[in-house]
Amino acid sequence: MVASSSSVVQVYPLSSYTFGTKEPKLEKDTSVADRLARMKVNPASLRAPTVDESARVRECSYFKEGMRTSVEGILLVQEHNHPHILLLQIGNTFCKLPGGRLKPGENEIEGLKRKLSSKLGANSTAHQPNWQIGECVANWWRPNFETVMYPYCPPHITKPKECKKLFMVHLPEREYFAVPKNLKLLAVPLFELYDNVQRYGPVISTIPQQLSRFQFNMISQ
Amino acid sequence: MVASSSSVVQVYPLSSYTFGTKEPKLEKDTSVADRLARMKVNPASLRAPTVDESARVRECSYFKEGMRTSVEGILLVQEHNHPHILLLQIGNTFCKLPGGRLKPGENEIEGLKRKLSSKLGANSTAHQPNWQIGECVANWWRPNFETVMYPYCPPHITKPKECKKLFMVHLPEREYFAVPKNLKLLAVPLFELYDNVQRYGPVISTIPQQLSRFQFNMISQ
Repeated sequence: MVASSSSVVQVYPLSSYTFGTKEPKLEKDTSVADRLARMKVNPASLRAPTVDESARVRECSYFKEGMRTSVEGILLVQEHNHPHILLLQIGNTFCKLPGGRLKPGENEIEGLKRKLSSKLGANSTAHQPNWQIGECVANWWRPNFETVMYPYCPPHITKPKECKKLFMVHLPEREYFAVPKNLKLLAVPLFELYDNVQRYGPVISTIPQQLSRFQFNMISQ
Repeated sequence: MVASSSSVVQVYPLSSYTFGTKEPKLEKDTSVADRLARMKVNPASLRAPTVDESARVRECSYFKEGMRTSVEGILLVQEHNHPHILLLQIGNTFCKLPGGRLKPGENEIEGLKRKLSSKLGANSTAHQPNWQIGECVANWWRPNFETVMYPYCPPHITKPKECKKLFMVHLPEREYFAVPKNLKLLAVPLFELYDNVQRYGPVISTIPQQLSRFQFNMISQ
């Protein structure tokens, strides 16, 4: 049987971290509808392919690769002794967690490290953060080629189209993040996310409930 | 660092379990407002005291005992290969998880076992279920003597009045439950709870999101 004691998470102040910029990471789709249409025809193309991968990616399809898996990271900092989550803002309203989709067959943890470095790491591979991927916090399933996702695979759905997995990322005491120039990195307090599905959507707005089981050890500077 | 693999939970069919009845467990308060008023004056009286305890309980107060801790259990069964949660229904609308408040200084796990036996165990102590208390799934804090609770301790609240902790309870393959005659025991599917704060309140309606990290192993009969 599993131990019942809470997991302790060290949370360092936002001011412990240094932020720079790097070249833009362009989103492949300008709307959710675009993305879903592309996913149906060619789900593997939903991550930005490297030049080497492009030929292979073009051949992929949902019917070939099966369910897509996305992985996203929850990076915590504290301000005023309250936990804040790092979110990437695209344009003026849409926020998302850093992460992205796995390559077919890719390990979840390795894939999340790759995506975090792509979104927040320095361009030099010598200065990549040593990402510490922790607990799985949530899973969300997309049963159809539509925007709606559920925190369970709905009954009678035998082949969900996508599974999105959220993981805790345990940050070290100090780190440098490079933010793509077309995105903004925000530290959003849990009390702003909670009960705010209108602004953050169902996945991000229920992170406070999913983190409530952790004991946060707030480190002062 | 903590392992990232999902916890696996065995979920047996509802038909594996046998249900009987026992004498009513009367609620001490007929409304949430009554309960909060009593909690302010005398928080320890919010659990039903035994005769032996009554004298001591009457002396207790929030200012003496400090923050109250409640513990509740999430008991899962499956129907049609979809997880269902066992809820106790009081009257025609109000549903709650089995559990209750701890005695001052009581261990959380032992206290939850005591509360589960009180709510769902047979009257004979010889036939009590061997409760397997598992993972902490959520914590909720009540900052003031009011109904609202949050999945974090709000900033600037140094002395929350109550903390409610939800734990997974791993049921065995077969079990007998005795349900107090004034309550109904319901098996409610996750898809009914999800996004249904109007019917189930903020604590119960977000259990599907909190359970999404588990891998359910649905056992057929």
